[in-house]
Amino acid sequence: MASYGTISPSADLTLARGDLQDFVRGAAFLGTGGGGDPYVGRLILQQEMAQGSGVRILPLRSLADDALVVPVAMMGAPTVMTEKVPSVPALQRALEAVARRAGRPVDALIPLEIGGINSTMPLVVGARAKLPVVNADGMGRAFPEIQMVTFGVYGCAISPVVIANEHGDVVTVDATSNKQGEDLARAVVVRMGGAAHIALYPMTGAEVKATAIPDTLTLALDIGRIIRTARAARKPPEEALFAHVASLSVPRFGCILFDGKIVDVRRETRGGFNVGSVSLDGIGDHAGSFRVEFQNENLVAYHDGKVKAMVPDLITLVDRETIEPITTECLKYGQRVKVIGMSVPPIMRTPQALATFGPRAFRLDLDYVPLENIG
Amino acid sequence: MASYGTISPSADLTLARGDLQDFVRGAAFLGTGGGGDPYVGRLILQQEMAQGSGVRILPLRSLADDALVVPVAMMGAPTVMTEKVPSVPALQRALEAVARRAGRPVDALIPLEIGGINSTMPLVVGARAKLPVVNADGMGRAFPEIQMVTFGVYGCAISPVVIANEHGDVVTVDATSNKQGEDLARAVVVRMGGAAHIALYPMTGAEVKATAIPDTLTLALDIGRIIRTARAARKPPEEALFAHVASLSVPRFGCILFDGKIVDVRRETRGGFNVGSVSLDGIGDHAGSFRVEFQNENLVAYHDGKVKAMVPDLITLVDRETIEPITTECLKYGQRVKVIGMSVPPIMRTPQALATFGPRAFRLDLDYVPLENIG
Repeated sequence: MASYGTISPSADLTLARGDLQDFVRGAAFLGTGGGGDPYVGRLILQQEMAQGSGVRILPLRSLADDALVVPVAMMGAPTVMTEKVPSVPALQRALEAVARRAGRPVDALIPLEIGGINSTMPLVVGARAKLPVVNADGMGRAFPEIQMVTFGVYGCAISPVVIANEHGDVVTVDATSNKQGEDLARAVVVRMGGAAHIALYPMTGAEVKATAIPDTLTLALDIGRIIRTARAARKPPEEALFAHVASLSVPRFGCILFDGKIVDVRRETRGGFNVGSVSLDGIGDHAGSFRVEFQNENLVAYHDGKVKAMVPDLITLVDRETIEPITTECLKYGQRVKVIGMSVPPIMRTPQALATFGPRAFRLDLDYVPLENIG
Repeated sequence: MASYGTISPSADLTLARGDLQDFVRGAAFLGTGGGGDPYVGRLILQQEMAQGSGVRILPLRSLADDALVVPVAMMGAPTVMTEKVPSVPALQRALEAVARRAGRPVDALIPLEIGGINSTMPLVVGARAKLPVVNADGMGRAFPEIQMVTFGVYGCAISPVVIANEHGDVVTVDATSNKQGEDLARAVVVRMGGAAHIALYPMTGAEVKATAIPDTLTLALDIGRIIRTARAARKPPEEALFAHVASLSVPRFGCILFDGKIVDVRRETRGGFNVGSVSLDGIGDHAGSFRVEFQNENLVAYHDGKVKAMVPDLITLVDRETIEPITTECLKYGQRVKVIGMSVPPIMRTPQALATFGPRAFRLDLDYVPLENIG
């Protein structure tokens, strides 16, 4: 029987092997184009669960105030991560280094971001290390930089950031600011080949409860299920999806931003990021041209030059027929896609949150306007 | 009264404020063009000594076998270091991080390299922290990379490499190999602006005695004195210099490789290094053209295309009249210079030493030939 320190596990969300396909589909949706290939994350987690390791998910409210909670994640350009698969031992080495520095065992893990591969990595490490994973995260989506988390926005320190590669090299960053932690860790990740394994932001349970975005593992699973169910029923899943998120305890707004065909993709790996843009021409009711700019994740969407959505709100490209989310590294000329917009919760729209991951944090010369207020 | 742990200090070499100019001149000579601006190092050390801090130098043989000895140094491109001056508090933070990891206080410091600014930095930190500095080093000169030390050649581990900047950021590298330690630390140093402060290779006194190059602080002071004395007497100092090094307990060979005028300097800061070459046309007895290639330090010298000297042997450019050593970042078109060659001791010429800092370690397609055997 696993020991959970001072934490009482609760069974609000369970994740069985049969749920994984839905879960990673939802995580890819929340990844807004980034977050790494969810397929790889699912395979690793499936393999772990096939070996009998259970995944325990802990509701945010069940977390003891004095618990030590640590996010683990992959850091790097998603284009690189499709070639350099995650190493569970390296993630464990990073986690152990944080625990050693804290001078106590880790009680629970938490995803840094719910988008893409980093939604599954804490579950894999949790299964391997017999640690529960908190049903919450620090981004409510995926973001390209590790200071772009609500943990940091609301006062938690990024350091130590421990970076480990699959060969056994370990680098520990103690930074004077969370942004500096990102910059120094990024340099190490680039030198390690463009992708590496990290543990960072060691937090108390009280800090996590005050700063995390709740129930995002549940949200990922729900989104994945809704898409699959509607697809099987040959119904457009958007309506069910938008109705579901509007009914959440913290409601969200969703809409179709555009329906079109990809006519251009510009993409390069620069400074350890996957940077570029995708252009669409309209189909059916949707006329004109549409463009989405990304840095790992989709940042801003323009319709005939006019802004239609911007970070931190979600901009997700999905296959026009199957509604399967498409990550930026998989965008191809000629694909027919829908662009879906979805609002983020208020905790991600405060002035201090926008200062960290609003449009200007990405050097976009735009004042943030909530998705639902853009005409 | 300072505590020296298990070490008994001895007074074989003393360094007074009046000796510093000679000392850094000799260190610049041994720097073979690199190692950073010795003038800056002298100013910082002078200031430290003016505040009453004493410098204690410890002969290698007096080092207790169980002492904890740690090199401290600046890492980065010398071109950057002339703009970004060393921070003694940052060097101390790096040293303290190594001590914390070792779980015990540091007993003595040692220069990583005797060339340039890194000959004085341990003396400054030693004066500030009241720690003696061992009269020895790991390079017997300067080299551009931190795995290029006899400590590592003969079995000591580079890790932890602690890198600190003047702002308070600290990064700790635990690498699977000494070369990997260099690569990861270099990425961090580049991100920190091209120069930073390091502590690394924590060693026991026994390890230092088995791997260090002895008495190189004395050698630097002697070379500086010989140049000054001969200059004052209006005599060419080369003869006195070559006679002196030939009379050492481990004798060295010295010679004038070329006498000429600089007709071209190519230099760029690339990958955190100062890389390039300098070309000379002969003066007086010396005809033809001469070229020296460098990566921070001078690596190889060609006379009319024929190799005349190569790493690890010393290749130093000095002012033709004053015999003042010239660092690569100070080379200028039209300067009249002499190129001096000097052999290194046998500990630096073994197969394992040459594998680490011989010509092929610098991607030069040359088999090492000792300076004195080249016609």
